[in-house]
Amino acid sequence: MHQMITREDCAALDAADKLAHCRARFNLPAETIYLDGNSLGAMPANVPARMNRAMEQEWAQGLIRSWNDADWYPAPQRTGNRIAQLVGAGQDEVIVADSTSVNLFKVLVAATRMRPGRGVILAERTNFPTDVYIAGSAAEMTGCELRCVDPDAVLDAIDDNVAIVSLTHVNYKTGQRYDIEAVTRRAHEAGALVVWDLCHTAGAMPVHLNRCEVDFAVGCGYKYLNGGPGAPAFVFVASRHQDEVRQPLTGWHGHARPFAFTHEYEPHAGIDRMLTGTAPQLGLIALESALEAFDGVDLEDLRDKSVELGDLFIRLSDQELSGLGFSLASPRDAEQRGSQVSLRHAEGYAIMQALIDRNIIGDFRAPDILRFGFAALYVRHVDIWDTIAALKEIVVSGAWNTDAFRTRKSVT
Amino acid sequence: MHQMITREDCAALDAADKLAHCRARFNLPAETIYLDGNSLGAMPANVPARMNRAMEQEWAQGLIRSWNDADWYPAPQRTGNRIAQLVGAGQDEVIVADSTSVNLFKVLVAATRMRPGRGVILAERTNFPTDVYIAGSAAEMTGCELRCVDPDAVLDAIDDNVAIVSLTHVNYKTGQRYDIEAVTRRAHEAGALVVWDLCHTAGAMPVHLNRCEVDFAVGCGYKYLNGGPGAPAFVFVASRHQDEVRQPLTGWHGHARPFAFTHEYEPHAGIDRMLTGTAPQLGLIALESALEAFDGVDLEDLRDKSVELGDLFIRLSDQELSGLGFSLASPRDAEQRGSQVSLRHAEGYAIMQALIDRNIIGDFRAPDILRFGFAALYVRHVDIWDTIAALKEIVVSGAWNTDAFRTRKSVT
Repeated sequence: MHQMITREDCAALDAADKLAHCRARFNLPAETIYLDGNSLGAMPANVPARMNRAMEQEWAQGLIRSWNDADWYPAPQRTGNRIAQLVGAGQDEVIVADSTSVNLFKVLVAATRMRPGRGVILAERTNFPTDVYIAGSAAEMTGCELRCVDPDAVLDAIDDNVAIVSLTHVNYKTGQRYDIEAVTRRAHEAGALVVWDLCHTAGAMPVHLNRCEVDFAVGCGYKYLNGGPGAPAFVFVASRHQDEVRQPLTGWHGHARPFAFTHEYEPHAGIDRMLTGTAPQLGLIALESALEAFDGVDLEDLRDKSVELGDLFIRLSDQELSGLGFSLASPRDAEQRGSQVSLRHAEGYAIMQALIDRNIIGDFRAPDILRFGFAALYVRHVDIWDTIAALKEIVVSGAWNTDAFRTRKSVT
Repeated sequence: MHQMITREDCAALDAADKLAHCRARFNLPAETIYLDGNSLGAMPANVPARMNRAMEQEWAQGLIRSWNDADWYPAPQRTGNRIAQLVGAGQDEVIVADSTSVNLFKVLVAATRMRPGRGVILAERTNFPTDVYIAGSAAEMTGCELRCVDPDAVLDAIDDNVAIVSLTHVNYKTGQRYDIEAVTRRAHEAGALVVWDLCHTAGAMPVHLNRCEVDFAVGCGYKYLNGGPGAPAFVFVASRHQDEVRQPLTGWHGHARPFAFTHEYEPHAGIDRMLTGTAPQLGLIALESALEAFDGVDLEDLRDKSVELGDLFIRLSDQELSGLGFSLASPRDAEQRGSQVSLRHAEGYAIMQALIDRNIIGDFRAPDILRFGFAALYVRHVDIWDTIAALKEIVVSGAWNTDAFRTRKSVT
């Protein structure tokens, strides 16, 4: 039997936390516990000053000259190189552009073109819907079949007709994660290419794209990378594939010589060919400066703390919430989990609203998932204690059971 | 014979300018003349305060709640409706998303699907290259042929096999513009659909998409709309087509119920189906607040002033620059022109660098074009005088002929 965990135990863990100093890098609201950094990361405190310089100096004063003089032009490459360090990629293998969905379309079509004669894009039923929608459109436009299988059927479904295996590393609802290395190896044995969506991974834990010989990856900038609402996304193409890649969104910034204004499209060498239109500078600058929150952070420490927070959440759920209608929707084993823990509860929506009303912010995913993300740079162990205590109070007191909390908002 | 125009004449025109008060809506650098608002618009002075609120309050304090509480979620529609008023579209016919190139891909593929059995996308050789590159990719993916013709051959090239006529209203190099109404009518008579790129139009002069029965349009947010570097773009779909449109970038924000997380893609009713990924909020907020610079501005007044500035530029070129190697690259007739005037000169690159060195900013387009854009909200008549005087001085003195000005920068 474990000993009962107290709030003091949690405070002691915070006092010993190697990453505790990172919390001061964020501008967090007072008296608020934020467990939704997996949906929108908190704001790094340095971002507004950098953005003000971008607006008042670079845009207003520098005007068009800032594309050269303020180094706007290489920002997608520069920011991509910074993200590369967080996902086990090399320099010039990651670039920042567009949204995750748009980048996924680019790599799925490009990868399909690298496997002519194969007719299947393999996806997974429980993946985040946009990935499946985009894969469906890419399949339709390339004459492939989109084959969707259950998570535990993925490995067996990889056969000689599969061109691409397209998966998300960490599931958005349950936090269940794949073994990137094992799936990639199996795909390669069958002659297929892999595309990994790292939306719930990048900035949350280390991954090793090159060590695992991953072909393509995409991910967003606004979750654990803290780049701000709708931050631009990133795309990884292994260097060995870059000269072969023909992506379909052939905009001028992916051209070999964008400012030569030639009539024929000729893709840029290397990762730059993944660009399409003019880079969204304001969003890029926010994202680039936000990434400074990772300065000096060892990703193994980050992962250790994330696991600690998740395990603590589960143990406290067991200790405090038993008999209150909650069940664990995430793997108990941290090896199977990303940086979130989800609970199921039949009244999950109203309970989450009541929790948010108490300034503890997680989020709800239909039909019954309460989702809690642990951004290890700024979440404390006492935050986990306080969250579990509030969940207990809300259910025991019946505080969730009011119209104010039960009425669905248009967007959740 | 015209009388000689003096700088005093220009100052008198400024004193009588109905839009003179709009200049104070912008934060412009001192002692600088900015004639490149057709490439990156100047910064409206209200933008930084709005952006600071978005960062410090909505992002940092509101966090994920701001998608509802700060009305982030409907920002693409709201900002689109504002742009609709500048391009003669109705409410719910314009939405802000992605880049111009990405939006062009969406509408080209969607339009091709509406004309099955027709095999040609008709484009134009002198169009901005990204439009041609994207049309080439859309054609390849839909089994069409991309047919590129010279500008004066467009009308005759519209035959029964053309699915789409894809043109830019105002040419990026010469400022030459098409008659939207005449080309659209001819396309419709032949059973084709039209896609207009309004990058050099929106915010520069009125257009009447609905009066001209235009089918689709796209445009960028960072030129005459002053939305900031890499601002998100917009897309117009005539309401009569909206329920038929199937665009290929089927991301979750274009879904009928994005937060139901259903497995099957079902397009949203109306213009929302043109969305793909999560909206780039920071860029959107900059663009939305920037559009307030148009508050109370009559677009006919805007056009009148733009024509005045362009005509003045041409007359002063005739008066001051004859015999100095310049020639007019833009139509002399304002009815054929957008809001820019371009000059050709064999030493155009170095002359433009020398001009920029004197804090007069236009831009250069290879091989020999000096391009001057007239954003009527903030450009003055005396700016035109001073620009022509500086061009004269630079060429007469030979000041352009130094290594500093002749050496090409990586991006121009």
